[in-house]
Amino acid sequence: MTVLNPEARTMTTMKDLKGFCYPLTPGGTSSLVGEMPWHYAAEYVNIVYRADPAAIAAYLPEPLEPGPEPDIAYVAFSKWWALWDNQPEMAFTNPERTQYRECAIWVGCSFQGTPGQICLQIWVSNDFTLARGWFMGFAKKLGQTYITEYHPLNPAMHPLGVGSKLKGYVCAHGERIIEGTMEIAHKISPADLPKPMGLPVFHIRHFPSIVRGAPPSVLELVRLGVANLRFSEEIWAGNGTLTFFPSDIEEHMTLVPREIIGAYHFSLGYSFPGGEVLFKWV
Amino acid sequence: MTVLNPEARTMTTMKDLKGFCYPLTPGGTSSLVGEMPWHYAAEYVNIVYRADPAAIAAYLPEPLEPGPEPDIAYVAFSKWWALWDNQPEMAFTNPERTQYRECAIWVGCSFQGTPGQICLQIWVSNDFTLARGWFMGFAKKLGQTYITEYHPLNPAMHPLGVGSKLKGYVCAHGERIIEGTMEIAHKISPADLPKPMGLPVFHIRHFPSIVRGAPPSVLELVRLGVANLRFSEEIWAGNGTLTFFPSDIEEHMTLVPREIIGAYHFSLGYSFPGGEVLFKWV
Amino acid sequence: MTVLNPEARTMTTMKDLKGFCYPLTPGGTSSLVGEMPWHYAAEYVNIVYRADPAAIAAYLPEPLEPGPEPDIAYVAFSKWWALWDNQPEMAFTNPERTQYRECAIWVGCSFQGTPGQICLQIWVSNDFTLARGWFMGFAKKLGQTYITEYHPLNPAMHPLGVGSKLKGYVCAHGERIIEGTMEIAHKISPADLPKPMGLPVFHIRHFPSIVRGAPPSVLELVRLGVANLRFSEEIWAGNGTLTFFPSDIEEHMTLVPREIIGAYHFSLGYSFPGGEVLFKWV
Amino acid sequence: MTVLNPEARTMTTMKDLKGFCYPLTPGGTSSLVGEMPWHYAAEYVNIVYRADPAAIAAYLPEPLEPGPEPDIAYVAFSKWWALWDNQPEMAFTNPERTQYRECAIWVGCSFQGTPGQICLQIWVSNDFTLARGWFMGFAKKLGQTYITEYHPLNPAMHPLGVGSKLKGYVCAHGERIIEGTMEIAHKISPADLPKPMGLPVFHIRHFPSIVRGAPPSVLELVRLGVANLRFSEEIWAGNGTLTFFPSDIEEHMTLVPREIIGAYHFSLGYSFPGGEVLFKWV
Repeated sequence: MTVLNPEARTMTTMKDLKGFCYPLTPGGTSSLVGEMPWHYAAEYVNIVYRADPAAIAAYLPEPLEPGPEPDIAYVAFSKWWALWDNQPEMAFTNPERTQYRECAIWVGCSFQGTPGQICLQIWVSNDFTLARGWFMGFAKKLGQTYITEYHPLNPAMHPLGVGSKLKGYVCAHGERIIEGTMEIAHKISPADLPKPMGLPVFHIRHFPSIVRGAPPSVLELVRLGVANLRFSEEIWAGNGTLTFFPSDIEEHMTLVPREIIGAYHFSLGYSFPGGEVLFKWV
Repeated sequence: MTVLNPEARTMTTMKDLKGFCYPLTPGGTSSLVGEMPWHYAAEYVNIVYRADPAAIAAYLPEPLEPGPEPDIAYVAFSKWWALWDNQPEMAFTNPERTQYRECAIWVGCSFQGTPGQICLQIWVSNDFTLARGWFMGFAKKLGQTYITEYHPLNPAMHPLGVGSKLKGYVCAHGERIIEGTMEIAHKISPADLPKPMGLPVFHIRHFPSIVRGAPPSVLELVRLGVANLRFSEEIWAGNGTLTFFPSDIEEHMTLVPREIIGAYHFSLGYSFPGGEVLFKWV
Repeated sequence: MTVLNPEARTMTTMKDLKGFCYPLTPGGTSSLVGEMPWHYAAEYVNIVYRADPAAIAAYLPEPLEPGPEPDIAYVAFSKWWALWDNQPEMAFTNPERTQYRECAIWVGCSFQGTPGQICLQIWVSNDFTLARGWFMGFAKKLGQTYITEYHPLNPAMHPLGVGSKLKGYVCAHGERIIEGTMEIAHKISPADLPKPMGLPVFHIRHFPSIVRGAPPSVLELVRLGVANLRFSEEIWAGNGTLTFFPSDIEEHMTLVPREIIGAYHFSLGYSFPGGEVLFKWV
Repeated sequence: MTVLNPEARTMTTMKDLKGFCYPLTPGGTSSLVGEMPWHYAAEYVNIVYRADPAAIAAYLPEPLEPGPEPDIAYVAFSKWWALWDNQPEMAFTNPERTQYRECAIWVGCSFQGTPGQICLQIWVSNDFTLARGWFMGFAKKLGQTYITEYHPLNPAMHPLGVGSKLKGYVCAHGERIIEGTMEIAHKISPADLPKPMGLPVFHIRHFPSIVRGAPPSVLELVRLGVANLRFSEEIWAGNGTLTFFPSDIEEHMTLVPREIIGAYHFSLGYSFPGGEVLFKWV
């Protein structure tokens, strides 16, 4: 039988456990997500479209309201390079912990007269971004997103430019869910990107109770902060298409496109300094 | 411009959004996890061992305390077949949504004099079990677990029995983290499985705040319920080994084995009817 | 500068390199596939159907011919446990190297009056079975196959039996390609399994030349051997369905079902002792 | 019984089946690899080192010989963008079919007095590059390669330049196999890249027989062609490290580094027009 130092039995309090999230550990280095601010860069292929405004409104519980254009939505296919603040060397320590892909359905909304946007459904390729998203009210599931890339040194690939055709698609649990395409037509500036892109993000944070039938432990409306925003020099606009595929278990079909507005290919970077709670349902 | 039915703008309230967890939707069928009770079957290869009791105690914040054997721990490699209650046909609807694998480090603990167990670190193969685990206080990350299987019809495989050698290992983000082996020696009955296997599960549920630097939104001690427990007819015991591999980002090394107690191969089934909250830190 | 033993420069001949296939190495232990015989067990969900006989015939080059039922085909969803002969401990050494899943389209054929079967398209989950298949004339690509499983200890799962519903599906490069279902109706014996299941396998082995435009290096008709064949005690028959999904790059749609014959769920084991070459096209 | 057009039974000959490789089909569009030339772009992190020359020589069967520096080797971590000639739109049709990653061990060699290089072991992330590699004599297995990336728009990432630290690693079947790091020190020109990088590639093509114990169907020495070679403007050189991890089933440990020469980060593009056969062992 191991002899135990009796003092060891009484020394641990919750403040001795560290980590932004699970696992909470004595060392705090294995937390699935590290400390805010979180720092991002993303490359996007976004298809902006109009959906059934009633279908969008059905996702916007009071005090959220439909936005000024109550039928506006977009699907964003994206690649990400991310860091949290307290492990700034992670892209070197373990590259896999800093790269991922995702596909998201965004719609316009508003809160107390402020136009904004909300992400309704989203699939991502890794666990840390899934968890980090949950903390921000992103309803993330795992999925695989693929996006066209043209490398300028490949002798058979034309460098990206007017006329280039891009495709993104996402699949999850063996189903292709959404596919989007874009044909590049011309350059625009960041101010030309159509809303709700760029508007404040209003999200619903949720965490269930452990007690069967009880109200959720967390159910609150939040606004996500943003800092250090910068855009790529090149922002491409063009024509787009979107195909939503039926699924046995997903619910994206009510948000199916009625009309395509345009397609946009660009990169940006920003930091997430945290958010603020606007309203609590429980 | 789409003409909007003005009534659509005011009809949605939070009670119109359904789903046990994200995504909260009008239909409620795409929730990553469905309603309790949750129903499980698992096949285990478990290696029971002694670790540094101070290292274990460092994971047990008041009012949790070390258990009667403060150095006891086990690593569980397991395959799972799971359902939630409101989509009982899911193994047919989409088989992928009902099968996964995991590897976990468990240790003994106690709460107000009741001996129990707590899972300190765990890696799983899918998103729905990651999320479901988070709701139960499992600190789940994604990882790949592989476990020896002998099919009795393979002409070169000996059917499982005395002398059979089994291996489990788990890898995540490109690192093999833990490897365990077992050589089957004899059969035992469920009552012979050494504690803390079978003891009540005390877990710490945690969900961070969206506000930088704020206390977590959820930080509570819970006890997990269990119902419908049944064991496989065959429960095998034998000798075991465990190897913990160093990692750049994981913290399992403080829990490294000092002595191996034994190894166990068996299956069980149970339902999870929900849990109860024992204590709140915030 | 390293001092080199001059004899080392002249000692290596091709017979010093070992391995059944790539990589050929001095040690011969890292070969992606080991030595024959190869030993298998499989669990199947097979849907037997009729296709366009002209579409099948278009896959059967002389001296292969259509079989006695020129429109018969089946889709096989299966799980595998496999070993090669010279590393009989591999299920313990590395479990991942012995387990995989696949989905295949088989059709009837004949050679010089002997009825047989040929696998036209097939997707598998791992590299070693992809390579091993290529050596046997299976046109294997990577894909993910999922199959319904009911664990008898799960409190919400009914043990497998009459009325059980099973589904298999395969997806590759983000596309679901084929989905099949079965509802179990009754037990049968191995002799009741409809042909071409159980018939000799005639395959086309192919390996391209490195010289652009040159004939392939290998293009031969082979017959695969089988030994140690044994079936599971329980062989289930029932009703089936099949859905072929369109693809941007796959060619299974010409083999789409016209009529479903039946569905079969069973396990078997066998050894592959090698094959014989029947005909060479080059 | 289906009525069969009798002419359909006799019309198919081998020339009716199309495809560069498996599957050979009437349409020829689902071949796992398309027609030469093949077109590539790659981004490399390469660590050049000295190994045991006897270990290298043991991989070089006559008429291959050790190169002018018989101990020179390098590990290449790389990302790829590839097309085959007859499906030039594939990066749009299905982006997943044009992107992959790999890690390879290369060594110097020579043939009839011509210095060259040969890839001894290599792990790749996808099926089409695995197969295409086999046709060129690359001993490809599946593995996952991760490489540091710094996106210039991420507020916490320093743009790539002097002082940047890069890591690559490869894992397969649950084992991390090789890890390499680089710290960028200065720019160089393509001519400064140390040999054997840039030398002709001499490879051993191999395809086993289906007959147990028979000589392989293909065993030949080839030289790979190259066309349209172009380099990135920026070629970075610096210091490097390499760690080879022991494996239960891989054989890279005999090629472990004795001394690190340098590390190189650059991109290039080229076309592969086919190769020539230099020698046949069977």
